[in-house]
Order: sequence, then C-alpha cells, then structure tokens
Amino acid sequence: MWTYDKFLEYPIKIKNSNPAMAKIIITQYGGPDGELAASLRYLSQKFSMLTPQAIATCNDIGTEELAHLEMVGSIVHQLVKNASLEEIKKAGLEAYYSDHGRGIYPVSAAGVPFTASYIQSKGNPIVDLTENLAAEQKARATYEYLINMADDPDVIEPLKFLREREVVHYQRFGEALRIVQDYLQEPRVIVINKPDSMK
Amino acid sequence: MWTYDKFLEYPIKIKNSNPAMAKIIITQYGGPDGELAASLRYLSQKFSMLTPQAIATCNDIGTEELAHLEMVGSIVHQLVKNASLEEIKKAGLEAYYSDHGRGIYPVSAAGVPFTASYIQSKGNPIVDLTENLAAEQKARATYEYLINMADDPDVIEPLKFLREREVVHYQRFGEALRIVQDYLQEPRVIVINKPDSMK
Amino acid sequence: MWTYDKFLEYPIKIKNSNPAMAKIIITQYGGPDGELAASLRYLSQKFSMLTPQAIATCNDIGTEELAHLEMVGSIVHQLVKNASLEEIKKAGLEAYYSDHGRGIYPVSAAGVPFTASYIQSKGNPIVDLTENLAAEQKARATYEYLINMADDPDVIEPLKFLREREVVHYQRFGEALRIVQDYLQEPRVIVINKPDSMK
Amino acid sequence: MWTYDKFLEYPIKIKNSNPAMAKIIITQYGGPDGELAASLRYLSQKFSMLTPQAIATCNDIGTEELAHLEMVGSIVHQLVKNASLEEIKKAGLEAYYSDHGRGIYPVSAAGVPFTASYIQSKGNPIVDLTENLAAEQKARATYEYLINMADDPDVIEPLKFLREREVVHYQRFGEALRIVQDYLQEPRVIVINKPDSMK
Amino acid sequence: MWTYDKFLEYPIKIKNSNPAMAKIIITQYGGPDGELAASLRYLSQKFSMLTPQAIATCNDIGTEELAHLEMVGSIVHQLVKNASLEEIKKAGLEAYYSDHGRGIYPVSAAGVPFTASYIQSKGNPIVDLTENLAAEQKARATYEYLINMADDPDVIEPLKFLREREVVHYQRFGEALRIVQDYLQEPRVIVINKPDSMK
Amino acid sequence: MWTYDKFLEYPIKIKNSNPAMAKIIITQYGGPDGELAASLRYLSQKFSMLTPQAIATCNDIGTEELAHLEMVGSIVHQLVKNASLEEIKKAGLEAYYSDHGRGIYPVSAAGVPFTASYIQSKGNPIVDLTENLAAEQKARATYEYLINMADDPDVIEPLKFLREREVVHYQRFGEALRIVQDYLQEPRVIVINKPDSMK
Repeated sequence: MWTYDKFLEYPIKIKNSNPAMAKIIITQYGGPDGELAASLRYLSQKFSMLTPQAIATCNDIGTEELAHLEMVGSIVHQLVKNASLEEIKKAGLEAYYSDHGRGIYPVSAAGVPFTASYIQSKGNPIVDLTENLAAEQKARATYEYLINMADDPDVIEPLKFLREREVVHYQRFGEALRIVQDYLQEPRVIVINKPDSMK
Repeated sequence: MWTYDKFLEYPIKIKNSNPAMAKIIITQYGGPDGELAASLRYLSQKFSMLTPQAIATCNDIGTEELAHLEMVGSIVHQLVKNASLEEIKKAGLEAYYSDHGRGIYPVSAAGVPFTASYIQSKGNPIVDLTENLAAEQKARATYEYLINMADDPDVIEPLKFLREREVVHYQRFGEALRIVQDYLQEPRVIVINKPDSMK
Repeated sequence: MWTYDKFLEYPIKIKNSNPAMAKIIITQYGGPDGELAASLRYLSQKFSMLTPQAIATCNDIGTEELAHLEMVGSIVHQLVKNASLEEIKKAGLEAYYSDHGRGIYPVSAAGVPFTASYIQSKGNPIVDLTENLAAEQKARATYEYLINMADDPDVIEPLKFLREREVVHYQRFGEALRIVQDYLQEPRVIVINKPDSMK
Repeated sequence: MWTYDKFLEYPIKIKNSNPAMAKIIITQYGGPDGELAASLRYLSQKFSMLTPQAIATCNDIGTEELAHLEMVGSIVHQLVKNASLEEIKKAGLEAYYSDHGRGIYPVSAAGVPFTASYIQSKGNPIVDLTENLAAEQKARATYEYLINMADDPDVIEPLKFLREREVVHYQRFGEALRIVQDYLQEPRVIVINKPDSMK
Repeated sequence: MWTYDKFLEYPIKIKNSNPAMAKIIITQYGGPDGELAASLRYLSQKFSMLTPQAIATCNDIGTEELAHLEMVGSIVHQLVKNASLEEIKKAGLEAYYSDHGRGIYPVSAAGVPFTASYIQSKGNPIVDLTENLAAEQKARATYEYLINMADDPDVIEPLKFLREREVVHYQRFGEALRIVQDYLQEPRVIVINKPDSMK
Repeated sequence: MWTYDKFLEYPIKIKNSNPAMAKIIITQYGGPDGELAASLRYLSQKFSMLTPQAIATCNDIGTEELAHLEMVGSIVHQLVKNASLEEIKKAGLEAYYSDHGRGIYPVSAAGVPFTASYIQSKGNPIVDLTENLAAEQKARATYEYLINMADDPDVIEPLKFLREREVVHYQRFGEALRIVQDYLQEPRVIVINKPDSMK
C-alpha cells in the first residue's frame, strides 16, 4: 500500500498561464507514453516478477511514476488555472474546457481518454522488462518533443527532470532484466516458459 | 508523492486456485467501477477542489484506492498462479491467458481494457463530489455481485472489507460535499461558477 | 415505443454561421455528459427500476433527452450548413469536416466517437438513480461551460433552456430516489440486494 | 421530438429464463449492427438529407429502431430477471452480471461497450443511404445468426419480426436512395458535391 | 502472401511543407473510411467469399489498398518532414507531434487511433459485398472533402488518383456482388443462409 | 506497393474443427501482440527510419507479418468453417458467431476489436526499434501460450513456425538498432534529436 506525502517530487512553480502548452503536456498525464501508462504497467507487472530485485524495481518505479503523474497534473493545472477564456480559446483548449473546465482529466494531447491498450503485462518477466525498456524510451522521446515546444523555464525545468528520470528508469529496468536472465539460466525446480503441457 | 509500504492494506491469503473467480474479480482491477477508476478519478479531481478538507479527502481516498487496487491484483494473482491449464480452460480464462498468461492486466470481467471514459473530472467540486458518491455506490454494488458469486472465505473476507471501505468513502465524500456547499454559500472575492463572461 | 413529432422541443433559429461554436457544442451530442449518454442511460436503466414512478421517470426523461439530442444536432447543423470552407478551417473544424462534411456525427468536442463507457446501468435502482443525479450535474456543468464561450443569443437561448431542463431532471431523479428508498424499507416478499446466496 | 407510448411495438412474453440466449441477443442492443447503432445513424444522418422523403424516412426508421432497441432490452430482461446465479454462471453470463447485475447495458455479445465508431454519417445523402443499405443487411444477418441459435418460440417470434423489419427498412432506404439520385440529376442552383473550391 | 515492390503505385513528389494538410490527410491512413480500414476489411472478408471471382477481388483490392495506405503515409511524411516547429504549431499539428514527432501513426484527422470497429466482416458474402459498396462510397467522399481543402497540385494529383481508384473499386465490388447473387440462386448441395438448425 | 502471391507462407491444412482453439488463436489476428499490430507498426515506422537497412527491414518484416496475418486467418477459418452450431456454442464461440458468423474479423481472444493504441510509431528510429524488440517478444510469448493450449499437430506446426519467425524478427530488429546507433554516432550534417529550438 502507499502513504501520501504532501509535497511534489520536484517543485512546480509556474508564474505564467499557457493553455497552449497545457494542451500538449497533458499527454504525459493520459497519453500513450505518459506517467499513468507507466505506473499502471509496472504496478501490474510486479505480480509476475520472479526475483525480489525485479519486484522491488517495479514497485519503486511504479510508485515514482505516480509522483510524476502528480507533477504533470500540477504543471497543467498551473498553466490553466488563471487563464482567461479568451486565452483558452486562442490556445485551442476550448474543446477540453467544454468537457472538463480547468480541471485535470486523463487524455492525450489529441483529447483521447487514456486506455490500458497502451500498455502490456504479459505474465513473463523477460517480456515485461523488455516492454519497459521500450516504454521508458518512448516516454523520454515525448518529453523531448514537449521541451522542443516549450519556452518558459518554469515549465522546461520540471520537464527536463522528468526526462532524466526516464533515463534512470531505463537503466534500472536494464539491470533488472539482466538479473532475471541470469536467474533463469540457473537450474531450478520451477523454470519459467516450460510448456504447461509437461505436467 | 507517495511512499510504498511493503504490506497490503488487508491480508490476502488464498489457499485454493479458482480461475473462474479470478475472471470476474479482475473487474475491480480494470473495470468500470473498479479501484483503478476510483483512484484515477479522485487523484485527478483533487486539482480542482476548493477547500483543504476536500483536497485532503481526494488525496487520502485516492491513495487508499491504490492499496485496494493492489489487493485486487493480489487476489487475482493468488487465484491463478497455481492453476493448471486445464483449470484455466474450464474456467473460461483461456482468452485472458492467451494475451497475459497468469499475469495481471487491467481489464473488466469481459476482457475490455480499462478506459478513462469510465470516469469524469469536471473542474467543478460540487459536480465532482456528486460523481464520487455515485462512483462509491457503483463500486459497492460490484463487490456485492462478486460476493454473491464467491464461496471461498479466503476470497469473501477481503471482498467484504473492500465493500465496507466503499461505504466509508461514500460517507466521507458526502461530508466533503456538504463542506464545499457551505463554503460556496459564503460571500467571497472569487466565487466558483460565476460565468467567465463577467470580466 | 415512440411516436415522432415533427417539431423541436424548443425552437432553434440560428442566423449566423459559427463553426467554432459547432465544434464544441457537438460534445452535447456525442460527448461524455451529452444528451445521447443521458438518453441511453435512462432508457437502459428503466428495465431494473422497481417502482412505477421510477420506471415512468426513466422513460419520460430518457425520451426528453432524445428531443434534446435533436436540438443539439439542429444547433450544430445550423451553425455549419452555410459556413464556407475558409470559416471551417479558421474555426479548427477541418478535421471533423474531413470525415463528416457538414453532417452530424456523435463525437465529443475533441472528436472522439461516443462510447457507452461514459454511462452505467448497474441493475440496482438506488445505484442507478444516484448515478443519474451525478449525470445531470455533469450535463449542467457542460452547458455552463458552453454558455460561457458563446456570444450569439440565438445559440445561448436554447443552451440555457437545455441547462434548465437538467436542473429539473436532477430534481425528478432525486424524488424518484427518495420514493425507491422508502419502497425498499417496507418489508416485502422480494427484497432487493438480499444476497442471491440465500436461496 | 418524441412521445413515449407505453407499449412495445411487438409483444415480448418470455416464460423461461435463458441467460445463455440473453448473452448473445444483447448484441442487438449495444453491438455493431444492433438497434442502437441503427437508430443513432439514421437520426444523425437526417440533418444532411436533401429531399423531404429522405428526411422523413430517416426520422421514421430511426424512431422505429428505438422501439426495436426497447424490444431487445425487454427480451434480454425477461430472459435473465428470474435466472438464478447458478444459471447465470452456467451460461457464461457471470462477467456481465459482475458489472451490471441483471440490468440492461449496451454491449456486444462479447461484452464490448457500444461505440459510435460502428456507424457513419458522412454529410452526403448518397453515401449515407448506401451505408444504410449495408447496415440493414448486417442487422438482418445478425438476427439470422441469433435465430439459428435459439429454440424457444417466445424468443424466436420477436427475433423474426425484427429481422423482417430490417428487410422492409432495406427496401425503404433503397427507394429513398433512388429518389435522391433522381433529385440530384436535375439541374439546380445548389448542387451537392460541387467542389467548395468553386466560390 | 505478399511481395514488396519498392515503388509507390503513384508517384508522390511534394515540394512544399504543409502540416495543416498533413493533419487532415492522415485520416485516410488511420481514420474511419481510410485505406487501412479498407485493406483490413477486404483481406478479412475474403475467407468467407464463395466464388473464385469474389475471393480474387477481395485479395486484389485489399492488396491495392495497402499500396494506397503507403501513398497516404508518403504524402503525410513529405508534408511534415521539413516543417519547422513553428509551422507545426501554427497548423494545429502540435498535439500529434507531441506523441509521434514527424512520424506516421494511424489516426483519424481528430487524432483518434484506428479501431477495427470502423469495419465489419459478417461471414456472409452478400452482406460483406454490400458493406464494401458503402465503404468505397465513404472513402470517395473523404477524398473529395480533402481535395476541397487542398490547393497544392503536388497533393491534389495523388488525392484525385486515390479518389478515382475508389470509383473503380466500387464498380468491381458491384460486379462481384452480382456474380455471387447469381451463384446463390442456382440450386446446389451446399446453400448459404439455410438455418443451421436444419441438420 | 505489394504484389499478392496466391499461396500461404506456410501451409495450413487443418483436418479437424476446433472452435475453442479458433476463439483464442484469433488474438494473433486482431489482438494486442498479433500480426496486424506488428505489420501496421513496422510499415508505419518505416517513414521515419534513417538508414537504408532499417527502412528495408521495416518493409520486409512488415510485409512478412501480412503473410502471417493471412496464415492466422486461415487457421481460424479452417477451425470453424465446418463446425456445427453445437460445437460453436460448446466452445464459447457463440458471441463471436452472433456478430461475424464463421467469418474472420480482427479481435482479441476476448472479442475486443483491434485498436492502433496497441502500437506506437514515435518518429524516432532508436525508440521505434526498441519498441519492435519488445513487440517481437510479446508476440512470441503469445504463440507459446497458444501452443501450450493446443493439441492438434495441424495447428501446432504452423504456430511453431510463426513463433520461430518472431525470434528471427527480434534478431533482425536488434541488428537494425545497432546499425542505426552506429550511424547516429558518426558526425553528419543532419543529426537526429537535436532540439528543434536550435534554428
């Protein structure tokens, strides 16, 4: 289970409204390679992990992604909470405003509600950890696209932090994958991927 | 942000495989009225809450729902991890097994991947808190349907715990709603729901 | 069954094209808290209602929401039917035009096709009626957001009518909920929510 | 707008529970070629129809499909309302029961919630009416598949009625298509499908 | 199976960036009436076709639609590959860029990922071929809408080619339908659509 | 573009009906890690590849996945085409039959229509190729789950062939990734991932 800590993993202090940036940054809230996708993926996969280190990695990173989700929600919230309707319309955020006001709702930049179809949990640690390497790459690429389009340091700094954390996660999953591969090569009573037909 | 605690909110110790029960209990993992829907809803809505009490309620309950999500994942995992393929086929879980093995993946009982379309965050505390009352009702009803179909006390006990927590959440959201309604009736500089056209 | 009456519940006479407003008003045609969602929800739930008054309420309001759906379609249609391609592009409606021309198709403001995942029918009148209170709140909030962004009285007047009808529906569902709660408290042969295991 | 008539278009009087049949018949409630898809398609397309006859046809048939939707809901309801949990499990309806009890909710036989992606409204009467011919064919084929799997005359009779109505609809849309094609061949001031670039 | 030929069915040589056009043309890549929908529909239906001519038609046209899919991808790619971020933002393509950079991903103009819910394969040749007539009509209408909004001959020429091929496909499916209808009218040992109950 | 060759990549000759196996094998037609997902992913990504070898790999493997898609469709078709309705019901395939008869339609084993949300094309070769390694792993795992549940050699043989091809694809994508990484390390005029802000 989790204890909620009443502070963000990294401070978000945005002074200027920018609904145009909010419109795209929200894709790391509810989009295909965002923090919700990441957290849900790792916290679901953990049940199938074999080694204590892999289980802990999934729990840790899955938990950190929740903090990232909270950060992204804070960024979007601060970018729109004081925006006037005129600014919202000018930024192309009027479609989102019609259904969610200035609230936070999990969608991609296009406005498509989050779907678990974005992620996979295959019941197989090698497969899952490889999926996670790809996931962290995709998340990092998205942060780079978002940083490309931002110009406010208040926004760029936390996005850069989030991008760097993806790099660290990539390394940790790579390490977990190596450990699981080693574990599976040693002879054991229960071996993964033996066909269930051998009973 | 969150700290992960390495224990479940309520113990899950299931001695007997039962993939047929796993097949339906998973709906409280990834289904329309399940714990993921609940957690995501409350943790998203918190950004729009007006009173400290409402923000805290959304954070607390949203965090507890994560623990519930973990419990439901544990129940499903324990019900299938030792099930043979024959049991899996007999239980009608072969479709799930084809795509996820014995892993945990967020779907409804029907096998439909989770979608944020199940939830709403409207940027309006009164509306959101009313939504939450309905959500807790729906979650409770689902637990009752699941309990109706279960016969293993190892399964029924945690399901009953989860159902009772929904009742408590319902009461807490009702309280939060009353406090927000009172707050909004007092005259203030910034009043919610004044048309943005009055600028 | 239904008889079609060849007039709108409230007149729609829009003199000026405005594809930008059409783009967002269509969310009450095919969006999460729109008239299609409402109608489908109530007309589906009616099969599980216990009291004649609740069944009638679901039928009445579900039928009225169809009239509202027709009104929203008329508003959108009148806002685009004479709009030039230049106006359509300028308004950001070119994506919709590519797939639907100037026709009416059930999407949210973001362009996401309607999904029944937006609604619930739980087979339990108390739960369903609570869901309906929340639904009417959400619909009303959406109309307020749309009214905030409108400036043409030809558009604002019918939107205000639709918003006021949501308030009336909210009250009627509240009344139906109270009647069902009273009904369920009186002792009867068949009692809802008794566990099916007691047979 | 519509007036609700408190009787079904065709009587549904089912004496025997059969949740296995309910499980598949519901696809004509919320599935790809069902009555909701049909009604929504025609009532949306009507805004783009050119001739009074085509508009009337869309309104009439769209309205009749609502009556059919109500019939299908009644069939499913009567097949499950007295079914015991044992019968429900045996029939493979336990997944649906977990999320909806014995209520009515718009899904396909597979349990996938209805999506407007099943239908199209193209803003072009010729295209739309051709789509409708295909839609009526698909609906008819589904009724034949359902009739193939049914053995209770109480169920087969209304299904046959519904299938025959699809045949009538097919003919009426064919007629509407011919009239619109004739209409479009006569020289007029406003001609459909002239490129908008000619302004 | 297929052999890949390293040339496009029709040359695409676009000299000028235009992310605004890319934004809508992509709907024929991943949208409801696009080339992916078409190809997938015909290549899936072929398994149920009765006559050699119908099977061949589905294979041929399904294969040609793959070439069209490739053409549409090339058009979009050439329209964005040299576009600056400023042009991308100005064109309203920043949402797509956030999740896919300048890559090609199957979405509609609105940004909704492709879903097979757009198509049907009914296991019945008459129904399927009627569906295909409608599909070709809808595809053609979309190309006309796109051509309406384009002004670059480098873009209009291939779009016109694609539109004309839809007309040819419509005619070929009409022919296949007639042949299948004739085939089914002649008496045979195996007759399609006889109720399976006659065994 | 493509030329259609009128033979399967690997022969499918299935002598015995088995709708229960068809029900799950179809997940490699329309499911999250199936052949349609694979083909669509690689043929979409090719537009963003940098090296001739990577482009060719995407085209080759994407084209081979089409042949695999055709094989899976053939397997499912042969498993159901002669199955009686009784066998279909007993196998739990009656839901699929209601909407598609004995036809082939792209769904997962659960009956969920294919969605492009299963795949990603990120506009970045390193990211895309890493995604592809994970995709091939997931496809292979699915084939192992299916082989676990099969007992007919006519079915197991082609499934094993398909699984082995995934292994080969994994190796080819690994090789392509290494070549692209080398390419990107050498100094060049056009460098990928330089922030667009440097203009």
